Amino acid sequence: MKIAVLGTGGVGKAFAKRLTELGHQVCLGTRDVNATLEKTGASSVSEFMSNNPLVKLNTFAGAASFGELIINASKGEHTPEVITAAGIDNLSGKIIIDISNPLDFSNGMPPSLIPKWSNTNSLGEEIQKMIPGAKVVKTLNTMWNGLMLNPTQLAGGDHINYICGNDAGAKEQVINLLKEFGWKAENVLDLGDITAARATEATLPIWLRIYGAKKSGAFNFKIIG
Amino acid sequence: MKIAVLGTGGVGKAFAKRLTELGHQVCLGTRDVNATLEKTGASSVSEFMSNNPLVKLNTFAGAASFGELIINASKGEHTPEVITAAGIDNLSGKIIIDISNPLDFSNGMPPSLIPKWSNTNSLGEEIQKMIPGAKVVKTLNTMWNGLMLNPTQLAGGDHINYICGNDAGAKEQVINLLKEFGWKAENVLDLGDITAARATEATLPIWLRIYGAKKSGAFNFKIIG
Repeated sequence: MKIAVLGTGGVGKAFAKRLTELGHQVCLGTRDVNATLEKTGASSVSEFMSNNPLVKLNTFAGAASFGELIINASKGEHTPEVITAAGIDNLSGKIIIDISNPLDFSNGMPPSLIPKWSNTNSLGEEIQKMIPGAKVVKTLNTMWNGLMLNPTQLAGGDHINYICGNDAGAKEQVINLLKEFGWKAENVLDLGDITAARATEATLPIWLRIYGAKKSGAFNFKIIG
Repeated sequence: MKIAVLGTGGVGKAFAKRLTELGHQVCLGTRDVNATLEKTGASSVSEFMSNNPLVKLNTFAGAASFGELIINASKGEHTPEVITAAGIDNLSGKIIIDISNPLDFSNGMPPSLIPKWSNTNSLGEEIQKMIPGAKVVKTLNTMWNGLMLNPTQLAGGDHINYICGNDAGAKEQVINLLKEFGWKAENVLDLGDITAARATEATLPIWLRIYGAKKSGAFNFKIIG
């Protein structure tokens, strides 16, 4: 499948690599291709492109136009701008997997949540409101990216991933992709429509505190009972 | 130990019953003793008092004065009023175990969090600010009250309870009480000072969504990894 990954940070690059290994055609989307490629050195996009020659790189709009399925891996605080840059027309009618979180770094560490996109709203809903014709599916946003893409490395994959969104068929298709990553269907808990993103995004504060206590992100929650 | 339980709802009564079974002297605190006792029938305080004759009932101030240790089991939205009614002098110097959550029912179900007491603040911190001389310890607020008091009924007790507060000695004493309930020390995760209450209180939205999906509160989280 042709998949656009919006965002070239660590999470976006990890998705691009894994999806390519699984046989998908991947295009990373970025604000300014030349500016992105000008940066060199460890963890740079230019280095990543050299090591992953099958991955394409384009503007947000170019990537969104290419993708049959879209993954939003942009930083939460920038997501609405990224969606606007990608173009509503390029996104309408498509499934958008949103893995972002509305983290607010303006009050120091650990980050809090951006007030206008939390509690009685969420980034997942905000994207859905921006593109009524898209099928936004929120998932994978409650854990370290290493686990998102390779869940079986921890406890054989027996830990929890939430999914929510307004379109049942879209959620089914996303679950099929999650299975390619190694997720078992019984560990993907459907919490209903996209308003449940309020809850999954709100797990970040506890995740960050546990991360602080354990000094490692290689953990996840399991629901007992 | 003499323990005051502020709040006569389901959670407060469950604490009073369990603590009495464990040999503690318990006084429930309520706003208006006569008004509380006037209500009769199933789940009423008057019925509870008949069935649990060792439990005392007094005003918030009377209970707070009685207790060497205080448990705040009032509804989050009323907690600051309850603390004021209990009296700062009656609470200063004591450990206050805060199990409340700042749930906001004004936007429909499931509830959101009360904005002024969430995200960059919390109810736990609010109580600590109101009574600088008290040692507020937040714990047990992330699960069904049946599990708080009898954790071993689920998976032998192998699921998570968070604890936070500014005073290490107070947390140690609270962990001793948690052990009486059946908690193993290794399942009580210390997240640091009372600001971590922002994170534990913020787990309510996901708890409520899972509760909605499972139609049962008899579950808890376990941290894997």
